[in-house]
Amino acid sequence: MDADELDAFVVIHLPNILYLTGFSGSSGILLITATDAALFTDPRYTFQSKQEVTDAKVKIVRGSLLKELGKHLKSLPRRRIGFEGAHLVVAQKGLLENNAGRIFWTPWDGNVEALRMVKDKSELATMQEAADIACSSWEETLPLVRPGVSETDLAAELEYRMRRKGAAGPAFDTIIASGERGAWPHARPSRKLVKKNELVVFDLGAILRGYSSDLTRTVCVGRASPEMRRWYGAVLEAQQAARHALHPGVTADRVDAAARRVLKEAGLDKKFTHSTGHGLGLEVHESPRLGRGDHSVLRAGAVVTLEPGVYVEGTGGIRIEDDAVVTTSGAKYLTHCNRELIEIG
Amino acid sequence: MDADELDAFVVIHLPNILYLTGFSGSSGILLITATDAALFTDPRYTFQSKQEVTDAKVKIVRGSLLKELGKHLKSLPRRRIGFEGAHLVVAQKGLLENNAGRIFWTPWDGNVEALRMVKDKSELATMQEAADIACSSWEETLPLVRPGVSETDLAAELEYRMRRKGAAGPAFDTIIASGERGAWPHARPSRKLVKKNELVVFDLGAILRGYSSDLTRTVCVGRASPEMRRWYGAVLEAQQAARHALHPGVTADRVDAAARRVLKEAGLDKKFTHSTGHGLGLEVHESPRLGRGDHSVLRAGAVVTLEPGVYVEGTGGIRIEDDAVVTTSGAKYLTHCNRELIEIG
Repeated sequence: MDADELDAFVVIHLPNILYLTGFSGSSGILLITATDAALFTDPRYTFQSKQEVTDAKVKIVRGSLLKELGKHLKSLPRRRIGFEGAHLVVAQKGLLENNAGRIFWTPWDGNVEALRMVKDKSELATMQEAADIACSSWEETLPLVRPGVSETDLAAELEYRMRRKGAAGPAFDTIIASGERGAWPHARPSRKLVKKNELVVFDLGAILRGYSSDLTRTVCVGRASPEMRRWYGAVLEAQQAARHALHPGVTADRVDAAARRVLKEAGLDKKFTHSTGHGLGLEVHESPRLGRGDHSVLRAGAVVTLEPGVYVEGTGGIRIEDDAVVTTSGAKYLTHCNRELIEIG
Repeated sequence: MDADELDAFVVIHLPNILYLTGFSGSSGILLITATDAALFTDPRYTFQSKQEVTDAKVKIVRGSLLKELGKHLKSLPRRRIGFEGAHLVVAQKGLLENNAGRIFWTPWDGNVEALRMVKDKSELATMQEAADIACSSWEETLPLVRPGVSETDLAAELEYRMRRKGAAGPAFDTIIASGERGAWPHARPSRKLVKKNELVVFDLGAILRGYSSDLTRTVCVGRASPEMRRWYGAVLEAQQAARHALHPGVTADRVDAAARRVLKEAGLDKKFTHSTGHGLGLEVHESPRLGRGDHSVLRAGAVVTLEPGVYVEGTGGIRIEDDAVVTTSGAKYLTHCNRELIEIG
């Protein structure tokens, strides 16, 4: 903040507030100045904030947090204020301006996110646990995958097991997509029944003490066709290439390029319609994005997903996704469950 | 749009896009002009958007949707453009301006939300089903509530049952808060075990075909103390007062005032730290807010929650929440499960 001559920084993105203060509520704004930090929240969080917040003063506000913050900003002697341009909506900024008077606003994005990218030992231990919950829940659900079971029932079984193992909930809308629905990378589970000779994509994750895991496996019910085997092999090889490209100092786009090159050689790059992965932590999608144009440098302690895929309209999809942490010498997976093609029955 | 002399309206809030086009993906921008509508989304949704979107052209964009939209806006003959000030973030607006050239921007909020407030017959049928799923899952979980069971295990059982009944997932982070944790209105389930003589608050909801339900019940494990009975009675009476105040033409703040008055008479209004309810539909919190200062008029077809509560630090909380639809003559509940105090064991 000093380097950018900011007198204060207004944080509204809740995962950033959680990271900086420990506060896990759904309503809050954090104001950081050179000398202190104040969290504005509403009366629903009076007791919770007392227990959770250690490094900031807490102000319980009846009514609009932004109006109150605006008045507070007005009282500051100097008013060059940083804000999160990627999170503050236009109407919020207007409301702040109406209440704060003359202020010099400076978008100040990505600074907390950059701190969050590098996980410390205790964060990594939690993320390992979250990964273990996803993997073992997946392994225990696998025996239930057979012709006639519905996608929603499989989702119920998966999420139940994650909860019973201590997850605070699923890290995102669980994806279960069988047969041609697998060609929708973000399909939500439907009442569709799994059929013989279909591929089934499972994409799931657990939240544990705020941190997410994110795991995808694709299985074949019945015997895979030679074409399916070829696709699966190419996706797995693309993932391995990304894994080998991952080491301290590499940029995000180069990890993506490594996976994409393998799929291009297999003539499948046009069927790989998303980026290779993303940062993982307090958010299930956080910095960096392992895709074209993201030149973020990955340092030891960064956790990313590696999740190449191939999607064929009318037939289905294959995606293999693991969570990997960058180490001082390379990278290692947090998710350890079997990555080879499983054929059921 | 004609009345406000808009040449186009940019929609970025996903529930509004879902309402207007049927598109359920996680990435999209909708541009509406006098003559047509275009949905911009990314290649992950190529197949999904073909199936879901009927009333808009679909443009699949590699790279930034906003840059592409900006170029498109630049090509329009007249450029007075409405946008959602409550959803467009400052950085997105900047990116649009950089790519669209000279544009006269007009915040145009609340118009789609106002349409969404009044549910039609088919929406109400879906919301009734979503409410039934929440109620029956709650009723089936009740026999598992006993000393020694953990909050997370109860959450697992509840969410499992909602899924098995066809829910696409929980409508929000399920709240299970026992004993003094009940004084946190938004407590997430923890590994804490339920103890004898504690109140336990359950707040849960199901998503069905995009629509949410939202239900809260509070039970006592063991016999309730006279004080707990008095609190429970006051909260239930406050809810009944809100229910009686709910009819076509009433404003949102008056429904809140009806509940608050009862708690004030009982000397408990300072312990009721949130608003009486909120609109429910494609979002679990949508317009209106049943609280001070919201003068929205409720019309037949509006669905709102009624959820007064009382929170006592160190002891616990009581909240009773039902979903109610405004009818042509009054209001009726969608959630039918028992609202009386249940004492277990």
